[in-house]
Amino acid sequence: MHESIRQNLKNIGRLSEEEIALFCSKLIEKRLKRREHLYQFGQVCRSVAFVETGCLRYYYLVNGKEQTGQFFFENSWYTDYESFLSENPTEQFIQAMEPTKLWLLSRHALYELYELNPKFERFGRIMAENAYLGSRKSKVMLQNMLPEERYRLLIEERPKVIERISLKYIATYLGIQPESLSRIRKRIFEGK
Amino acid sequence: MHESIRQNLKNIGRLSEEEIALFCSKLIEKRLKRREHLYQFGQVCRSVAFVETGCLRYYYLVNGKEQTGQFFFENSWYTDYESFLSENPTEQFIQAMEPTKLWLLSRHALYELYELNPKFERFGRIMAENAYLGSRKSKVMLQNMLPEERYRLLIEERPKVIERISLKYIATYLGIQPESLSRIRKRIFEGK
Repeated sequence: MHESIRQNLKNIGRLSEEEIALFCSKLIEKRLKRREHLYQFGQVCRSVAFVETGCLRYYYLVNGKEQTGQFFFENSWYTDYESFLSENPTEQFIQAMEPTKLWLLSRHALYELYELNPKFERFGRIMAENAYLGSRKSKVMLQNMLPEERYRLLIEERPKVIERISLKYIATYLGIQPESLSRIRKRIFEGK
Repeated sequence: MHESIRQNLKNIGRLSEEEIALFCSKLIEKRLKRREHLYQFGQVCRSVAFVETGCLRYYYLVNGKEQTGQFFFENSWYTDYESFLSENPTEQFIQAMEPTKLWLLSRHALYELYELNPKFERFGRIMAENAYLGSRKSKVMLQNMLPEERYRLLIEERPKVIERISLKYIATYLGIQPESLSRIRKRIFEGK
């Protein structure tokens, strides 16, 4: 139990075994069925979630259509940082794409850890830095890249998305119509 | 000397007088003339900058036109977080809007501080969180608000921008043509 999360915390660095054990003692297990939501629009996101197995994605509803923001597979952390930091309601829907096992750390517990030992601040710093870099990267992809370039980048950098996520969700992530994505795939995989 | 930066670090919290003194001992003073650049497109942003007096703005060149990302006045911190974290060249131009006095903390010195004492991680965490929230806020403003709403929000939340920045730069920040901004101002201030 907790092995993958312990490894993840070790990679972040500087935490002793005792500190990792303290961190893990604050975690709450949560299991989601496929398509089940962790948070929905209007709720306040009061936890960070570590994906032990499965996959989460978050999406927005824009004029009744889903726009996928990101996918999170095993060994990664998810939170809606904006809602988490400000305690304002989230605009996201966060949903399991597969049967998913999570470990949740509440906002309250995380701030308590910061108070107990400043070494936990490092976890918060790296989470926030990654959230910033991820949000910038998505923006650049959607603003500056052509649809085919976006898909090629995904193949190169996120093979799990290609392997485990169905095309209709990938299309909403890349900002491409499903029919255009099918044509792009044909060109790439069949050289047509 | 350093009084405003000491106060700023105190507000971030948890640092003792000795730790603040250690932090301040790493700072390098830098003065910029009006319109002078701190970094330009293609350089790596290897420092965080505290604005003691004056004002910085960063902008991008898009099809030869300036798009302003943000303004930073006295008592605030600027860095291009993306370039700073990844050590990739920046796409930003960062420029003084007034005669400006900065204190620079190099990337190297900041990472050294993290190693010396995990209490400095808190500074990094709060910097990264603010960068994330700021970038999200700009995105929402540009995507979801009408030009007049953007200007009204600016009046309400950032009076220094209205008082100290000339209209042509405000227009490139709000993503509005200068002529449209003049019409909006007339409507608001003269009730026309």
